[in-house]
Amino acid sequence: MSLPDPPLPQVSHTQRIRVGHRPDALTGLTAALAEAGGDVGALDVVESGADRVVRDITVRARDAAHARALADAAGAVDGVEVLSVSDRVLDLHAGGKISIRTKMPVLTRDDLAMVYTPGVARVCTAIADRPESVRDLTIKGNSVAVISDGSAVLGLGDIGPAAAMPVMEGKAMLFKAFADVDAYPICLDARDPDRLVDIICALSVGFGGINLEDISAPRCFEVEGKLRQRLDIPVFHDDQHGTAVVVLAALHNAVRVVGKEVGPQLRVVVQGIGAAGIAVANLLMAAGVVDVVGVDRQGIVTARRRDARDPIFRRLGKQTNPRGLEGDKAAALAGADVFIGVSAGDTLSVEQLRLMADGAIVFAMANPTPEIDPALARRHAAVVATGRSDHPNQINNVLCFPGLFRGLLDARARTVDDRVKLTAAAAIAGIIPPERITADSIIPSPLDRAVVPAVAAAVAAAAR
Amino acid sequence: MSLPDPPLPQVSHTQRIRVGHRPDALTGLTAALAEAGGDVGALDVVESGADRVVRDITVRARDAAHARALADAAGAVDGVEVLSVSDRVLDLHAGGKISIRTKMPVLTRDDLAMVYTPGVARVCTAIADRPESVRDLTIKGNSVAVISDGSAVLGLGDIGPAAAMPVMEGKAMLFKAFADVDAYPICLDARDPDRLVDIICALSVGFGGINLEDISAPRCFEVEGKLRQRLDIPVFHDDQHGTAVVVLAALHNAVRVVGKEVGPQLRVVVQGIGAAGIAVANLLMAAGVVDVVGVDRQGIVTARRRDARDPIFRRLGKQTNPRGLEGDKAAALAGADVFIGVSAGDTLSVEQLRLMADGAIVFAMANPTPEIDPALARRHAAVVATGRSDHPNQINNVLCFPGLFRGLLDARARTVDDRVKLTAAAAIAGIIPPERITADSIIPSPLDRAVVPAVAAAVAAAAR
Repeated sequence: MSLPDPPLPQVSHTQRIRVGHRPDALTGLTAALAEAGGDVGALDVVESGADRVVRDITVRARDAAHARALADAAGAVDGVEVLSVSDRVLDLHAGGKISIRTKMPVLTRDDLAMVYTPGVARVCTAIADRPESVRDLTIKGNSVAVISDGSAVLGLGDIGPAAAMPVMEGKAMLFKAFADVDAYPICLDARDPDRLVDIICALSVGFGGINLEDISAPRCFEVEGKLRQRLDIPVFHDDQHGTAVVVLAALHNAVRVVGKEVGPQLRVVVQGIGAAGIAVANLLMAAGVVDVVGVDRQGIVTARRRDARDPIFRRLGKQTNPRGLEGDKAAALAGADVFIGVSAGDTLSVEQLRLMADGAIVFAMANPTPEIDPALARRHAAVVATGRSDHPNQINNVLCFPGLFRGLLDARARTVDDRVKLTAAAAIAGIIPPERITADSIIPSPLDRAVVPAVAAAVAAAAR
Repeated sequence: MSLPDPPLPQVSHTQRIRVGHRPDALTGLTAALAEAGGDVGALDVVESGADRVVRDITVRARDAAHARALADAAGAVDGVEVLSVSDRVLDLHAGGKISIRTKMPVLTRDDLAMVYTPGVARVCTAIADRPESVRDLTIKGNSVAVISDGSAVLGLGDIGPAAAMPVMEGKAMLFKAFADVDAYPICLDARDPDRLVDIICALSVGFGGINLEDISAPRCFEVEGKLRQRLDIPVFHDDQHGTAVVVLAALHNAVRVVGKEVGPQLRVVVQGIGAAGIAVANLLMAAGVVDVVGVDRQGIVTARRRDARDPIFRRLGKQTNPRGLEGDKAAALAGADVFIGVSAGDTLSVEQLRLMADGAIVFAMANPTPEIDPALARRHAAVVATGRSDHPNQINNVLCFPGLFRGLLDARARTVDDRVKLTAAAAIAGIIPPERITADSIIPSPLDRAVVPAVAAAVAAAAR
């Protein structure tokens, strides 16, 4: 039931190929690559000699094995020699994805005396005299720390802080590219929640906000909760709240497609009771949904369930499931309007989907493999969304965090609460004009440049 | 005995002035400013109307009170109205001095899929599989953390981590501008040495080096020592070792001027037994000097002195002072070849200086006021150097840290030892060709672009 893997850009490879001056060599090469399932992109000339041309050819492959097969296919063509195969994604990451920029030159003694000693002493004194001015006179006012302990990275799990760096750098890139926020990636070699809290508090001095990322549940709840109590800058665990905001944004428009409302009448099943699932359930309730039912591998979440692991899980059991359902997922899905999957691939069957009410809305957000093949789901549900970019309705956190932090920094916010999150969700949903909302268009593209200014303005107004 | 304060760029102010169309108004204004001791720089037209011109005039002042007096003098000129006075240094610091730069654009879905999910997962996996590749595939290989707790900032003392930010940002700027090192300022709200060590270890994952800065003695010794034991990246407390390296560099050339040598015959007095003084004494001994005598307010440092505060102080007492001197500074200075002051302003008298041997070398590095007025010292000593930019022979740490870390990163060094520091000092000294070494030219300018490549190459070779 899983999707066939399309040739994805992230596994594209560059082959450096020497092609002889036979007129048919290049034609033979592209034909061979196409036949082997490769998608030929850029085709650059590196060197042109009397008897041969050296070219760099970008070929998308399904996976690493496919990339090797494509190189073999190219090498088998008469007159073609494969000199090297490089991995575009790894090449792109060489040396990392961000760097530091100085805002003014340091060319003269005057420059040096103003940005460093002795002139800088006056700026230090100004901050010592008036602590709040640190937001004006240093990078703090526009800086966000992107912090992870590497315990729950993407779908990869506990790969540790060093291996988590590329994700945090990527996030810092998106902060800058989308919202001109100066974010810096900090991966911490620490696991105990109290130690994480202690470290993050100590290093927060120069930052105007903290974006927590890829910290495993239930530790993430304790870490975020304690940081929120101790710090006077916004703390936002994106895996929880970023996901909740974009899910709610998509839901606002999805219910319009089927003539329903985000409110007391709506029946919602949330599958997957991790960081994202709990935050989604909580934000939906803050938005006015009453009938939220959580399910995990053991079935419906109730306060009485014997395996209820921690206080947050038990509280969810108390606050959700107003009809007191018990048992397996089927009992939850019977008559449900909305299924929100933040769990694992291939965990929702067509039979289960058919138990839902008419006009069913399915958000199958497990990555890379959704809870149900979206093409299949569309045959039985009115609106289908996923986390993937190769299907309509991609629900992507990048719709939220850049604009959210832009607004929080602009407002010099000291915290981020439900009201701000609800505002952000409404702003994202509002990017699609009502008349353009359809089953295949409930959420803007992650690259839509209208999103960040709209979210930032709404968040700044709400936070002030 | 302190220096008259010159108009320094770091206290320059911009006056926004409305000048009537009387031909003599501008002349009157500049004359009034000059008479009041102001140094007029840039003179820009902001707005030009039928009956008046609005100008921004940059005027250097001695200090903030002088800047106010200059504004008053300008306002008293007929036909001149001062609209506003702004502080160039504070203006320059608005919003901070560095920002984040993305190394490639994020414009398309392909870009997004390669720098962020899902493509980035392959980079994470590559690092998880081969941990050393984090230096290739992330920013770690070119990144340095500039870390302070704000406990001993410049000459300002314990002003706390927020007020220390402008210095650390300035340092990050110089790292980038001079050596293309991506340094990030991290000010920590923590004081206990073990807690500092714990925090810095945890956050070091994404950095290829640690530059400690402005941490008070004796805590700085413990913090640096423990970090060096625990981390596999170079840890360098600039206040200690950066100072020691540039002092040794200057000494290499100073002794040539007077026909002496850095070796067992040289008698050196180090005044000020803080972080810098101890490091200077240690590095001089590593360079072959035997006769080093430390002095502080209580007199000559010996192992037996009752007020010997901590093990590092006692060890210094044991390792220095081979002639077993006791008593006050005069006993140390009698016949000394070199005086190195890293202490406080106006603490060396001409009478004391006269006790030194012929061809005396005086490094009076207290900032902003040197241990002795350098103009006065030059009448009695053969070579005089200070930390100030308005006298010859400025001994400035910026000669060391950018090139040093450039070399350490290039060599992927895991530590920094005395051999590396000695190499850096020799490379800095070597920038001045032997035939150009004079009493007024023993050390290159901090803006000399030849310094960083020379230091980096020498350090990288030594570290490999």
